[in-house]
Parts: sequence; C-alpha cells; structure tokens
Amino acid sequence: MEKRKLRGGMVGGGRGSKIGAVHRMAATIDGQAEIVAGAFSSDPEKSRSFAEELYLDSSRAYSDYREMAEKESALPAGERIDFVSIATPNADHFDVARTFLKAGFNVICDKPVTCRLVEAQELKSLVSSMGKVFAITYTYTGYPMVKQARYMIQQGLLGEIVKVVASYRQTWVARLLDAEDSSLDVWRLDPSKAGISCCVADIGIHAENLVHYITGLEIEKLCADLSGFVPGNPLDNDASILLRYKGGSKGIMHVSQVYAGEENEINIQVYGTKQGLSWSQYNQDYLEIKTLDGCTSTYTKGSRGSRVICDEARNASRLALGHPEGFIEAFANIYLGAFSDIRAQIANNSTSAGDYPTIDDGVNSMDFVETVVASAKSDEKWVRMKGDNAVSR
Amino acid sequence: MEKRKLRGGMVGGGRGSKIGAVHRMAATIDGQAEIVAGAFSSDPEKSRSFAEELYLDSSRAYSDYREMAEKESALPAGERIDFVSIATPNADHFDVARTFLKAGFNVICDKPVTCRLVEAQELKSLVSSMGKVFAITYTYTGYPMVKQARYMIQQGLLGEIVKVVASYRQTWVARLLDAEDSSLDVWRLDPSKAGISCCVADIGIHAENLVHYITGLEIEKLCADLSGFVPGNPLDNDASILLRYKGGSKGIMHVSQVYAGEENEINIQVYGTKQGLSWSQYNQDYLEIKTLDGCTSTYTKGSRGSRVICDEARNASRLALGHPEGFIEAFANIYLGAFSDIRAQIANNSTSAGDYPTIDDGVNSMDFVETVVASAKSDEKWVRMKGDNAVSR
Amino acid sequence: MEKRKLRGGMVGGGRGSKIGAVHRMAATIDGQAEIVAGAFSSDPEKSRSFAEELYLDSSRAYSDYREMAEKESALPAGERIDFVSIATPNADHFDVARTFLKAGFNVICDKPVTCRLVEAQELKSLVSSMGKVFAITYTYTGYPMVKQARYMIQQGLLGEIVKVVASYRQTWVARLLDAEDSSLDVWRLDPSKAGISCCVADIGIHAENLVHYITGLEIEKLCADLSGFVPGNPLDNDASILLRYKGGSKGIMHVSQVYAGEENEINIQVYGTKQGLSWSQYNQDYLEIKTLDGCTSTYTKGSRGSRVICDEARNASRLALGHPEGFIEAFANIYLGAFSDIRAQIANNSTSAGDYPTIDDGVNSMDFVETVVASAKSDEKWVRMKGDNAVSR
Amino acid sequence: MEKRKLRGGMVGGGRGSKIGAVHRMAATIDGQAEIVAGAFSSDPEKSRSFAEELYLDSSRAYSDYREMAEKESALPAGERIDFVSIATPNADHFDVARTFLKAGFNVICDKPVTCRLVEAQELKSLVSSMGKVFAITYTYTGYPMVKQARYMIQQGLLGEIVKVVASYRQTWVARLLDAEDSSLDVWRLDPSKAGISCCVADIGIHAENLVHYITGLEIEKLCADLSGFVPGNPLDNDASILLRYKGGSKGIMHVSQVYAGEENEINIQVYGTKQGLSWSQYNQDYLEIKTLDGCTSTYTKGSRGSRVICDEARNASRLALGHPEGFIEAFANIYLGAFSDIRAQIANNSTSAGDYPTIDDGVNSMDFVETVVASAKSDEKWVRMKGDNAVSR
Repeated sequence: MEKRKLRGGMVGGGRGSKIGAVHRMAATIDGQAEIVAGAFSSDPEKSRSFAEELYLDSSRAYSDYREMAEKESALPAGERIDFVSIATPNADHFDVARTFLKAGFNVICDKPVTCRLVEAQELKSLVSSMGKVFAITYTYTGYPMVKQARYMIQQGLLGEIVKVVASYRQTWVARLLDAEDSSLDVWRLDPSKAGISCCVADIGIHAENLVHYITGLEIEKLCADLSGFVPGNPLDNDASILLRYKGGSKGIMHVSQVYAGEENEINIQVYGTKQGLSWSQYNQDYLEIKTLDGCTSTYTKGSRGSRVICDEARNASRLALGHPEGFIEAFANIYLGAFSDIRAQIANNSTSAGDYPTIDDGVNSMDFVETVVASAKSDEKWVRMKGDNAVSR
Repeated sequence: MEKRKLRGGMVGGGRGSKIGAVHRMAATIDGQAEIVAGAFSSDPEKSRSFAEELYLDSSRAYSDYREMAEKESALPAGERIDFVSIATPNADHFDVARTFLKAGFNVICDKPVTCRLVEAQELKSLVSSMGKVFAITYTYTGYPMVKQARYMIQQGLLGEIVKVVASYRQTWVARLLDAEDSSLDVWRLDPSKAGISCCVADIGIHAENLVHYITGLEIEKLCADLSGFVPGNPLDNDASILLRYKGGSKGIMHVSQVYAGEENEINIQVYGTKQGLSWSQYNQDYLEIKTLDGCTSTYTKGSRGSRVICDEARNASRLALGHPEGFIEAFANIYLGAFSDIRAQIANNSTSAGDYPTIDDGVNSMDFVETVVASAKSDEKWVRMKGDNAVSR
Repeated sequence: MEKRKLRGGMVGGGRGSKIGAVHRMAATIDGQAEIVAGAFSSDPEKSRSFAEELYLDSSRAYSDYREMAEKESALPAGERIDFVSIATPNADHFDVARTFLKAGFNVICDKPVTCRLVEAQELKSLVSSMGKVFAITYTYTGYPMVKQARYMIQQGLLGEIVKVVASYRQTWVARLLDAEDSSLDVWRLDPSKAGISCCVADIGIHAENLVHYITGLEIEKLCADLSGFVPGNPLDNDASILLRYKGGSKGIMHVSQVYAGEENEINIQVYGTKQGLSWSQYNQDYLEIKTLDGCTSTYTKGSRGSRVICDEARNASRLALGHPEGFIEAFANIYLGAFSDIRAQIANNSTSAGDYPTIDDGVNSMDFVETVVASAKSDEKWVRMKGDNAVSR
Repeated sequence: MEKRKLRGGMVGGGRGSKIGAVHRMAATIDGQAEIVAGAFSSDPEKSRSFAEELYLDSSRAYSDYREMAEKESALPAGERIDFVSIATPNADHFDVARTFLKAGFNVICDKPVTCRLVEAQELKSLVSSMGKVFAITYTYTGYPMVKQARYMIQQGLLGEIVKVVASYRQTWVARLLDAEDSSLDVWRLDPSKAGISCCVADIGIHAENLVHYITGLEIEKLCADLSGFVPGNPLDNDASILLRYKGGSKGIMHVSQVYAGEENEINIQVYGTKQGLSWSQYNQDYLEIKTLDGCTSTYTKGSRGSRVICDEARNASRLALGHPEGFIEAFANIYLGAFSDIRAQIANNSTSAGDYPTIDDGVNSMDFVETVVASAKSDEKWVRMKGDNAVSR
C-alpha cells in the first residue's frame, strides 16, 4: 500500500465517554492511524458538535451509524475509512458490528462483543464470510508483562498448571448505593442496554479472557454464585465462580462492583507444578515468578541485555525500563495488532501476524456469561460451557 | 495468688517440631510462664533427652501423656502444672485434651482441636463441666492489626458487610511432588494422623476462623471443590469454596498447599457498604482501610497520640511503631489471653477477660471441615453448616 | 482561532530515538496537535526517510533545522508550524532553540535546556523579548499525583517543610561497564554533546526540578560529591548532594547511573512539621501522606466523590481510578499546558493558564548543574547557587 | 558445663522501659537463659517492686548497679549471674559496663556503648584484659536477611561495591514539637544523659553499623550537615552525611527524628558492579537482589530445598517461610551469639563462634559520632575518621 496512516471511524464514544477517548488515544498514539469520521451519539446534533471538538471534517460527522456505514461505503477507496471502532453501550454492539461487517469494513469493537451468544456466533460467521479483521478490546491482553506470562507458560516454565486464581475488583455500584454519588452513569444497570448481566458481562469476561490468554486453558464447567445489590434491579454486581478447566486444572474467580476502594484491580495468579506467577494491573509493568522454594523473581520490560523477556513483551513496550506504561498503551497494542492485519489485507497479504483478541474470544466470552448466569439460576449448580459447540478457539 | 510464673507442661512438640518450639517461645516470651514438664515424644527415651535439652528437671520428663496427667495430678498444688500445651499431630489432640481436662488441667491446644466434630463437641461438654480454660492456637487472631480490623467492623465503620474474600496459600505439597524434596514430613497426608482432610483441616480452618473473628459472620451454607494431588492419597491439598453467611453476606475462600512460591500467606479482604479492609500476614503490622472513593488508609500499631487504634490492638503490641512483630508474638498473645483466665481461675475470680480462641471456635472449625468435605463429595453441592446444632458461639 | 489541531515540527528524535517517539506520542495523544514537519537527523537522507515513516508530506522533511526554521517561516500562517519540539542531544538545544525563537516560533524543548547557564539566560531573554511560549519537558511534573503533592504543600497541609529527600536511580552506565552491553548509546558520555556533566545534567536536574515544583523551595547553597566510573571519561555518573534551601529547610539528594537494577526510579519524600509525603515513579498514580502518628493515607486520581484531590490532579488524569497512566501521559500533560498558552497566543489572549515548566526552570537547572560541579571541584565545599542573579522563578 | 540455662542480670530497663522488656524477651525467648537479678531503677524502691513484677527472688533486686556487681560477685559460682544486660540511658553505659567488667562479668550492652570515644576505647582495653564477652545490641545485624546480604557480598555476588545508600527514619521529635504529645520521654534530648548527639548517637550509629556489617566497608572520611529542631536544645535531630570509604566506594546516609510518619524505618541499598541489593526493616524477612538488566529477585528465609540462602541466615530464623519474624527475634539472635561465647568461656573453650557486635563496633560507632559532629561544626567539612588509631575491626 502507499505510505499513509490508516483512516478510522467511530460509533459511540461521544462527549463524556471515557472509553471513547481511550479508543481514540489508542488508535492514534503510535501515529499509525487517524480518526476521520464518526457517529458519536444517537443525537445527530451531539454527534456533529462532538466531531467539531475532535477537529473532524464536518462532512464526516454522521447522524447515525447506518448513515455512516452507507456513506463511507460510497466514498472512493482512497478516502473511506479502513476500520470502525465501536464504543457504544453493549446492546448496540451487535447491530453496529453487523452493519459495518456487511458493508465491508474492518471492526474494532469494545467488549462484550454482543449481549447474547447467538449474536456473537452470527458475527463470527460474518467475519469469516466477509474476510474482515475483527478485534475486540480485551485491554489487559495488551500489557507487555501479560504477554511475558503467556510466553513463560507456553515455554513450559511453570510446569503443568494446577490452579488459577483471578479477580477483577471495582467499587462503583457500592459508591452509587452510598447515595452521595447518584450521578453515576448507569446504563450498565439497564438490562435493555447491558444485556443479561452487569458485572460478569462487563468485567467477568475480562478476567476470563485474561486467564485464557495467559494459560490457554478452556473452561469445561463452572459453578457460580451471583449477587445483585441494587434494589429492584435484576442484574448481578458480584460474582464468585468455581471453575474446572479441560485437562484437569482448577480455577477460582471473583469479580465485583461492590468492593469498596478497589478500583479496576484485575489480577491473576497461576500455579504450576514448577513455578507460580502473579500479575496485577496495579503493578502493570512487573511480573512475579515464584519458585517452589519461596524465591520470587520480578521481571519487567526487557532491557537490551535481557535474556528472559520474550520478543512479544519487548515489542509491546514503548519506553525504557522503569518508565511506567499503562492502560492506554496496552489498549494501543491491540490496535497495533489489528492494524497489522488491516495493512496486510490492504496489501493483499493474507498472512495474519497480529496478536489481538478476535471474534473467537467474543464468542467464548458470551458462552461464559450465559453459562455463569445459568449456573447461578440452576438447581444443578455445575454447568458445562457450550465450548466447541459454540466456537473453536 | 502469690506472685509467680505459671507452670506449663507440653505434650508433643519434641525435637524437630517447629510448632512445639513456637508454643514454648509463645508461652514464655512475656515472662509469665515457664515450661516445667513434658511428654515430648511417644518414644520415652526421646522425650527424656529432649527434656534435658530444655533444661527441665528430669523427674518431669514423662514417658507418655497419660503418665504425665496422672503424675502431675498427684503433685502438690504448689508444684503441679497450671496448664498443658498440646502440640502433637492432629489425631492425638482429642485423647490428650480429654485426658488432661478430666484430670482437671487447663489446656492450650494446637488446631484442629480434633479430627471429628463429635469429638470437638465432647470436649466442649467437658470444658463446660470441668470449668477449665481451653484455648486453641488460631495464631492469626493474635495479631494486633487483626484485632483492629475486628474493632473497626464492630464499630460499624465498614457499614454492612457485603463480601468477604479470604485465602491461605502454601507450597509444601507442590514441593513434595517436585521430588527433589521427598524428605518433607508427611504425617499431614496420613488420614490416620490428620483426619478426613489435609488442607482444609490444616489451613482452611485458619482462614475460616480469621473471617469469623474479624467479621463475626457465621456460615449458613457452602459449596466446595476439593482437589488432591498426591498420587494414591485420599486427602485434599487444595480447596475452593463459595460461602453464604447468615444475614446475607457472601464469601469466597481458597486455600492450597500447591501454590508454588506462596508460603503461609493468609490474607483477608472484607468489603462493606461504607469501607473495605485488607490484611495479610505478609504485611502483618499494617491494616489497609479503603474508602469508596479510592483512598486507602494504612493503620499500624498505635502510637501514644493515635486516636484510631483500639486498646485491644495497642495492648497486643510490644514494640514501637515500625519495629516488626511477627508470628511468635501473635501466638504469645493467645497465651497471654489464656493466662489471664488461668490466673483469674487460680484467684477464684470468675470473670473471664481473655481474648483468645476457645473450644467454641474448635467446634465450629470441625463443623466447617465436615461440611466442606460433604459438599465436595455431594451431588447437591450447597451444604448447610450444622451451626447452632453444633455450637453456639 | 478556527477549530483546528495545532501543527508541530520536530528537530532531532529520528530513528532509534526513544525520546523522539515520546515527544510525538505526547504531542498527539490528546488529538490537539499533529506533527507536520521535521529535521529528524543531521543526515538529510535519514531525515527524509524517517519523515516518510511518519507519513509526513515530503516537502516538510528538512535537511537541517536552519532550513526548517527558514522555510517554515516562509509558509503562510495557515500552514506553518505552531511550535517546534527539540529532541536532539543536549549540545544542540541552545542553537536550535535560539534559531526557532528568533524566527518567531514557540518551542517545546527537551532538558537540559542548554549546556551552560549563560546560554539558558540568553534564551530567557529571547523568550521574553519574542513573547513566545517556551516549555521544557520536565516530565515528572506532569504526573497527576505530583500536582496533588504540590497542592497539598501549597495548602499548608504538611506544615513547614523540614527536610526533603530526593533521588533518581539508573543503571545504564553500570551495564555499559559490565562489557556485555557495549552497544549502549553513549553521546551522554561525550562532553562535546552532553556538556560539563553526564549524570547531574541528565537526571539530577529532574530531581531538583521535581523538588522545586512540589515544594516551591529554592536552593541557597549545596555541597556535592561527584563520581565518574568510565575509565578515561571526565564526566560524572553519580552524585551525592547536601542541600540548604532558602528559609531554612534542609535537603539531601542522590542521583546515579550506576545503581544496579534501578531503572529510572525517581522519588521524593517531603517531611513537614505536620505531615510527610512520598512519591515515586514506580508507583506513579499514588501519593502517600504520612501523619505524625504513623498512619499513611494513599491518594490516587480523584473519583467524582473525592473531596481531597485537587482540580489540577484530576484534570491531569485521563482514566478511571486504577487504570494506570504513565510516563507518556505525564509528558503529554506538559504539552497540553504549552498548547493552552499557544492557543491563547493565537487567539491574542494574553492570559497564560498553562501549568508547565518554562525557561525559568531551565535557567535554574543550569545554575544547579554548574553549582554542583563547582562544589565537587572546590576546596570550600559549600557553594552558593547564583539564584536571583541567575533568574527569578 | 552442666546442662543449665544461663543466669542473667539487668541494669536499668525498669517499668515503662520498652527496650528493657525487649532485652528480657530476647534473652529468654529461646529458653537458653533466665533473668535472675537486677537493678532496674536508680530508685531502690522502684527497682524492688519491678523485680517483684518479674517474679524475681527479692534477694536479688538491688538498689543500684554497684551493689549488684558487688553482691553478685560474692555469690557462689553456681548462683551468680553469667552476664549482665545494660539498658540504662546512654550516659550510664560506661560506668555500669566498666564496673561489671572489672568485677569479672560478661556484658551485653545497649548502644551507644558510651558517650565518648575515649570511654569506648577504655572499655575495649578492659574487655581484652579481662577476657570477657562484650556484646552490643545493634539489633539490625541480627536479622536473617541482613546476614544473607553480608554473605552475598562476601561471596562477590555484587562485584565491587560502588555506592551505599542508608537511612534511618523516625518521627518522634516532630511529634514532640507538635505539642499534642508533650508526654514523650526526652532523656535523649538531655546532653547529660545522651552525650554530644541525639540523632546520630541513637540511630545514625545503627545505620553506620548496618552498612559496615553488610559490606565490610570502613569510612575514610565524611562530610555532615546536622540540624536540631528543639528550641533551646543543642543536640541534633537530623543528619545528612556524605561518605567516602577506604578503597574508593562512596556512600550517602541520612537519619532523622523529624521525618513525619516514618517510624523506625532503617534501610540500606548497596550497588555493586554486578548486582545491587536492598533491605528495609519494613520488609524484614525479604532481601531484594537487583540485576543489571532490571530483574529483581526477592529472597527469604531458606526452605529446605533452597540453594541460595546461607547457613547464617537459615540458622537465624526460627519459623517456616512466610511466618514473619521481627525485631525481638533479631535482638535474640545477638543474645544467642553472645550466649554461644559465654558457654564456650564457661567450658574453658577459647574458640569464639558467636556472630554478634562487639566492643570493636562500639569503638567505631563513637569514632563515627565524634567525626560527624566535628564535620558539622568545622569549616573544613570533610573530616577523617580516626579509624585504625581508634580501633581495628
């Protein structure tokens, strides 16, 4: 392809949306893309005025995503967007993604990819038939030390995996309930916008995807206890889950929106027959490796002389050791992975080199959400994932 | 009573026993007691030679605990022991404790107090009918900051408790399985000495007791997944447990002997509607209190000017701020609590002032162990604790 | 001004320059500016090919900075750059900055601003006479929690400042000397490119500037011990400095390039009569406030309900609590501060609202470097800063 | 010798003395000694009543230390004390130690050993001529991981030492000045009881001794800045010190009693040409080893399988990994070292096997205190230690 930045569009993510801003920063920080179009709000006027704030050409501020898909399709190849980023509430993901896929666009979608498993499966078929890039922003898989964790397990350095512990901890529903902060945005608590789950669909799938990315483990069955704390609201704000993975490894997971004072702490510990590892977003640039005799080694982004840090981790880092890199950079690594495949597509190079979450991860997450909810509601508590019937990943 | 040190005896805890040494250090560190008698081994010769190492009068090195109970009973009041410390493998606790209680002695017993719930219940009856002091060394309840955590919850500073997370992490079975360390002591893996559980009975009850001590919560029912990793061995080395407490709080707990590189890390997080708290033995002198808006306060042993540290925590500390106090001192605080009641008993003062774990905690632990094992073996996974039927605490 | 992104140019920062990439990411991450021109290398061909990598219009890839200043000046106002970022080795900063200032451009310059105090003073005169924005990228002042620290001291919450401890710790010279890593870039060790100091001029001024930014303290005199470890090289790699501030506060500082395993850890502790504070880049999103009775409060980026986090810190943060923000975002905050003043300038609005380091900081740093070197070489060890004679800040 | 506990006496350390209690706990925790005599207060009545609290035989509660030395000397060998522990204010150490040495007793003395260098030198002569054991309780050298640090440097694992950073941080003078806590004990601020220095003599010598113990380095010369903050009081509460060691290593040290919220945090970092190390009392059971490429290994008390933990560290630990051991246990390790030599003495075995601080350390500390004070008062700031003229250690 000619030497140029990729052109991106955005659906959702308008004024007040923190995640919309994250998508734009992540898409552009490396100078590989620019945002040139958008349908930022369901209110056309708001969409236009927000586009102006972003210094976009007003002709590409669209009233809604359908108009955007249609008009962008009609633009010459040298002008139209190369990908669309979807940053709407959950319930819109499916329609928006399907619309753009059908119109022939690559998609970078926030999670959860849909509200139901069948929708995710439909997107999977579409991705396959259209031959498009479809990335899902499971942010935490973009951290260098998460890639290092994955690498070390793949190399067999932990031995066989015996047990996995994961949690994702938030406070916001507790703060909401504390009444002093009733201004909190609550679309996540609205089943028509969030789907069948609030907590598991929002952060439980992050924890599950992180476990899968790092360990490669697939859930065989699980047993869940869900709690909702908002009076009159049917959705979960807290989940405790026992897990059995294919091959015999065990797991335990808890995710919550009512853990006072814990803000977006996602962490994972993996225990193998030879070593253990521990990673937390609170200490994102570091990975702890624990030996059987109680010595802990802390690895960080590789210096030139390092012999222990894998290329994937090294390449995912932009700075010298010690200079912290955070959430935005991890997010940007997912974009870079997708960009790599998009550029290959443009160049008619069929080889995918990108390391980023795909629709397969999305299908698996929806299988997970539905299985957790089924377990919590069932009498027979241990419920099998649909697994291969749902998706092979 | 006259001004004198209390006189203690010990059953078990001979050469090579780390926990026996801990009992002796804890009993004597504050200058309130001395160890004057013992049946340190089931081998009379070993018991005698170990007593010599401890500089004991040879006449009080006994061949076995029955002889010890009998002969100590026969000594004049001014010579005989005031209490016996039991530091044998689990399976002997019941017989030894029963024997000494029946002989009229106060008992300080290692945990688990027995191997079966019915035995614990029998001891509870005996303690009550004999009017003796019976302490169980749930070490972690002796830490100053654990007492501060309990105080803050009692004062309502966390609001209503929403969720409790606890874990106890060990490596030793993983190390054993790694073959390079086959010399590890394994009576804990022998059902005839350890009872029906290895991991839950050894460290699960510590985690459960810590939760109960800090929060006051009582388990209504639970759902457990147990794993054993030693080929041919029927006992558990890993447990994942979902918990529902009376009153509606939820809990999650995991304890393991196969977590590579985690050595005796017991930790607890309690999340309330107003604040959360976090404590770990790895940072034993500090207690983190987390507000809804993300500010964490770290409390430590109270200085003179402190207005936030409770008397119980302050009194449980021997040193100035910053000078670490550890496991032995926490253990000693349990002894001090029991000594307080023993001295009151000697003085015919019926008021108990001691803050230490009692046979009620022991009964509850055995209820917990049996319920966890029942859940893991059952088809109907959620199993109720016997609770009030077992013990009121 | 019309709604548009600012246009930036860059001098230096070509292929292989990590700091050049940081300048570009920081300048563009918030969608407020784009890089449109550059003289990226002293080799015209390399400059051109690097511009191509950045997808720049080839007409604005310049052979050297003089050509760039001249040709950009000749462009229409609607096309020419609004600012230039200088990311060359130290020795070029002065000439490049002077050239662009004289040509009427705003400047964002890496540190140290010059190699000598007199050069910094000359730039200060030029900035004043030309009425241009001149920012220096003292990155660490851009962190939200550094702004919170400054705020709390300004509010008097620490009382009078008694003592300040600061250090900046690097390893790279030790690694270089260890021979296995002889490929390390060493212009910093070349006096013709780095000036009279390697360590103090590179990282000592970061530590000094951070102290000044947070506390407002100005050095009265200092006593320094410098060490150089590279055989045959005259420059310092390690500095230990005693400090006396105007008004009576004391300080101690150490900065080094030979601290094995410490990578870019810059930290500061300030002790006042009422409270102390501690901040480290290793834990960049958190600020510890320590009371006289041993309680530590850890603050982080403010949630909506927070009453303790100042607006400056809150506005300097892009993400929800817990999601880490790092070096690039802090760097970008300095750019945002400068952009604010550049936009005001374009709008003929004379009010400066930007919170970013200026040429005054640069003059003070050069005064510091020269005073430290003078102290280390003198017999009379305590040497006064030129201070007000050098600059009023 | 016959199998028996050693018999100890104590001078000072009566009611309200925290350090007196620490000496008793440390002396007795391992069951190797008992306290049987004492002159606990300069007030005979207080001494007697405190002895009663300790359950001592009233015949051995002495009115003052001279009476105690005299009467204990007159007791039969099988009854008299084997050692005396000195826990008085500083100014009495010399007279008490001299008296007991001359009377033929072994001495375990708190630090600083005297108030002046010449006094320490006199004690050194006496120790030598009397052939007695003389231990000084530099507590921090008793920690297992401090011994591991020393071992690793002795083994050459850090390479050549380039730089040492040490600090000891306290708050108490700041708290005193804050007026709400005027009840603080202040003999340390009284020159007639504390000597020529408050801060350096109390905690500066701990930091210096720790550096020497771990690294073996000896100070060639130093440059100090002292500050006193108590109005009308001539003594120092804060010290900043530049250090040059024999052989070329550099050092920096700061110790303070006015660091708000830092309570007894003593820490050290040693940077060598191959690796660095870091230890802090706040994390006493762990030692960090840092490689040149940014990987940190955290060692702890050795498990059976460990190949990296030295015997000295292993033997200094009483508990399994993870169970914290603190200040009292470190203190007790110094007692165990002295006991080992005392038992050898009793057995007429001339070989010293004890690893504990001796009068040589005491002489060196007093040399350090006097040199620091001289530097702070001098015009020529860098002042040489008397060093070999004072003592060879």
